[in-house]
Amino acid sequence: MSGSVQGYNPRTGEPVGSPVPETSDVSVDSLARAAEAAFPSWSTMPAVERASVLDAVADALDASSDALVEVAEAETALGVPRLTTELKRTTNQLRLFGGVLREGSYVEATLDSANPDIIPPRPVLRRMLRPLGTVGVFAASNFPFAFSVAGGDTASALASGCPVIVKAHPSHPGTSAETARIVASVVPVGVFGIVHGQEAGVALVKHPAIKAVGFTGSTVGGRALFDLASSRPDPIPFYGELGSVNPTVVLPEAAAARPEGFAAEFVGSLTLGVGQFCTNPGLVFAPESLVPALSDAVSSAVGGPMLNERMCDAYRSGTDGLASSGLASLVAEGTAPTEGWSVPPRLFQVPLATFADNLEKLTEEHFGPAAIVVTYTDPADLASVLPHLPGTLTGTVHAAESEHEPAARVAESLRPVVGRLIFNGWPTGVAVAWGMHHGGPWPATTNPLHTSVGATSIRRWLAPVTYQSWPDPLLPAELRNDNPLGIPRRVDGVLGTH
Amino acid sequence: MSGSVQGYNPRTGEPVGSPVPETSDVSVDSLARAAEAAFPSWSTMPAVERASVLDAVADALDASSDALVEVAEAETALGVPRLTTELKRTTNQLRLFGGVLREGSYVEATLDSANPDIIPPRPVLRRMLRPLGTVGVFAASNFPFAFSVAGGDTASALASGCPVIVKAHPSHPGTSAETARIVASVVPVGVFGIVHGQEAGVALVKHPAIKAVGFTGSTVGGRALFDLASSRPDPIPFYGELGSVNPTVVLPEAAAARPEGFAAEFVGSLTLGVGQFCTNPGLVFAPESLVPALSDAVSSAVGGPMLNERMCDAYRSGTDGLASSGLASLVAEGTAPTEGWSVPPRLFQVPLATFADNLEKLTEEHFGPAAIVVTYTDPADLASVLPHLPGTLTGTVHAAESEHEPAARVAESLRPVVGRLIFNGWPTGVAVAWGMHHGGPWPATTNPLHTSVGATSIRRWLAPVTYQSWPDPLLPAELRNDNPLGIPRRVDGVLGTH
Repeated sequence: MSGSVQGYNPRTGEPVGSPVPETSDVSVDSLARAAEAAFPSWSTMPAVERASVLDAVADALDASSDALVEVAEAETALGVPRLTTELKRTTNQLRLFGGVLREGSYVEATLDSANPDIIPPRPVLRRMLRPLGTVGVFAASNFPFAFSVAGGDTASALASGCPVIVKAHPSHPGTSAETARIVASVVPVGVFGIVHGQEAGVALVKHPAIKAVGFTGSTVGGRALFDLASSRPDPIPFYGELGSVNPTVVLPEAAAARPEGFAAEFVGSLTLGVGQFCTNPGLVFAPESLVPALSDAVSSAVGGPMLNERMCDAYRSGTDGLASSGLASLVAEGTAPTEGWSVPPRLFQVPLATFADNLEKLTEEHFGPAAIVVTYTDPADLASVLPHLPGTLTGTVHAAESEHEPAARVAESLRPVVGRLIFNGWPTGVAVAWGMHHGGPWPATTNPLHTSVGATSIRRWLAPVTYQSWPDPLLPAELRNDNPLGIPRRVDGVLGTH
Repeated sequence: MSGSVQGYNPRTGEPVGSPVPETSDVSVDSLARAAEAAFPSWSTMPAVERASVLDAVADALDASSDALVEVAEAETALGVPRLTTELKRTTNQLRLFGGVLREGSYVEATLDSANPDIIPPRPVLRRMLRPLGTVGVFAASNFPFAFSVAGGDTASALASGCPVIVKAHPSHPGTSAETARIVASVVPVGVFGIVHGQEAGVALVKHPAIKAVGFTGSTVGGRALFDLASSRPDPIPFYGELGSVNPTVVLPEAAAARPEGFAAEFVGSLTLGVGQFCTNPGLVFAPESLVPALSDAVSSAVGGPMLNERMCDAYRSGTDGLASSGLASLVAEGTAPTEGWSVPPRLFQVPLATFADNLEKLTEEHFGPAAIVVTYTDPADLASVLPHLPGTLTGTVHAAESEHEPAARVAESLRPVVGRLIFNGWPTGVAVAWGMHHGGPWPATTNPLHTSVGATSIRRWLAPVTYQSWPDPLLPAELRNDNPLGIPRRVDGVLGTH
């Protein structure tokens, strides 16, 4: 009854590895039930012990680095250096969450003493965050490690104390299966599972034992699953990281200062991983004078194979459609290897007024190494356009020392629609840190409050509970009066380690 | 074209006050546009100044206390003492948020220094929370002040820096209009608006300028609006606080210790505000030996008028239906004044096994002073039933000193389905504090991560933004290196005031 998922080599379009069987509804159900059974012990394991398990998962993945990178390279063509770095990023991320658990403030322990004299009177209250239950994670195509089976969603959910069931991405089934085997060999039984196939993904989102879902992928796919999660008899939180156009604004003096250097950096960001980044700089607002340098740089750039045939076709038809739409001019095209699912970088140009009149059409994401330069004459004109961009993960400003004032105005125009504001840099490359926010308003994500990267991504899987007038010995260690774990807490409104 | 909303006296069923016109779609649109225009200055006003505005709103409401209570008493019949206290609770809540703004940690200021040597490399990152945009608030019927026009949703959203448009509850249009007049006279133009009528509420949820919605009310109404918010072209966060059965477990020795005292306290909580509390104790798990005391107490109790005719009818038909269902026995009924929309308290009984077999039917909320006693013989039998209760705002355990161990087991069974665990107390009465969580899994709310009461309710209206490599002078004050506001921040992972 079930089919299978076959991996392909993007450089040749030929199958690689054995097909992985699709997961039946019955198997999805048993994985979900096993995760449910594992929840009580995993969720109440002391955080420092869970941290050690995350470290052990990281160590096990690092120990298999060569084998994992080899199968991922065959299925994704992203190259050994990039994949080796990406796996290291993935294991560092698991270790970061270990650090978050050991620091302990992630539970937001809060203690209020009684006050019978205020209105309304206050009993003794103790509040902390506790894990939600089993989490479903939909892996992305473009980061076969960092946003896939053992990626950020999985790492943060496991850290929170939630069991995880991953829906593997069909573009790298072998990498997924091998990563899953390693993770499952380290964590307690039932705490981690993996399913393959689209129907299994749907069954996962609808399963009553699943209490939240993380997703990284396309706007269309993410929206369909968000709708499914929201229309359950019991709607569940769905955290989708979807499409993003990542506007970059170059102010006049910054553009004039070093056009070739700027163009070279831009093309580096645009073509990184064949443009298959959610933070790819797809929209550049620049003075017309910068266009020749940008065009030259794109013309000299070399594309590469995209991750799968569907993405290759979508890039080609999407950018062909844009070129023939009459709305934007194709001003430069790089080269592409002829074999497999390779595509060339493409650069389009449109004046600001035309862009503003066709905002919806011209802010469609063309996943891959394509960008539109929107040419402006006066930076002041940007203020009426930038706030109307669709929600996006990042917004970037390039400004000379003398342009701080207009840069601040551009930033204020962009802020309501972006999750991260970058100064004189590039949006590709997402640091894993306490201060990272990788999110933004719709359609960048399905929920603007949350991030899929960084220490605070753990919050997506935690909900508060308050203990009222609760006997001290019966409280979780995080909330006992003498703070046995020594974690940061808020006591009568004041943050500290007390 | 538009109709009007008429207030009624629940004691007589007669109209009180003048009808308030329903708000047209055109007016909803102009209110939303005015709020949008007010957003830039309101959202960037220094937090301490916004705190002063909240204090001024509180002062203005307090100054009009007598007049507000008089109109609310005519429209709700909740009684002058309760309404006076509720208004004080409402103004104290506004002042609590002033304190939250002055303390400053609510923005979660986070500063990471650069580290080029890790994978991936880390640039200088600065993260904080910023307000989402204009918020729609659906006022509740049962708290004409504390969960209505100037209630918790409005106070927290204004505190966050979001403009607010309230959809008034039709059961107290006069109270709503008068409260709105006072709030609007204090806050800057456009920052606060009010609409009346069901169609205006729908228009509000669908309006593109509305970025999030807060709701307190029925499961049916909340679900319909949640579905509307989730199915927008750009889905927005919808925070609904809906129905709740609030289980109370009485362990055997606690029940035996003082049956009459316990029963008297139970009936006090059950009949408070004619049982029109979202935290009303609607399910009591008790030994059979406690039933006579509970029955006696309910038989002696006096009901009162419900807030509107629809709620009165729903209570009567819902509890009549339960009595005739054969699933639970009506074991006691109190009295009710004969006039208006008055209802009597009612107590039902069912054995644990029957309850477990008919869980869905017997956990339907009957809003008002009705409860079901579920009788058990061995507390150990509860563990297989309690985790299957629908999500609920509170769960309560009554235990003697010698019963701490079974109390802890009951609490662990309840924890996954409740937002607040209460020991030897009653769920009615929700303190406004840092440590309060007033939320829970579906159907208690539409989002288990958030609370509608307490300091952290402000988070519902805030989203993170990260500034990468951003020049210090261009950063918001909260994120500048020298911490000019002196607020608590996280610097390189460590919480402190630095």
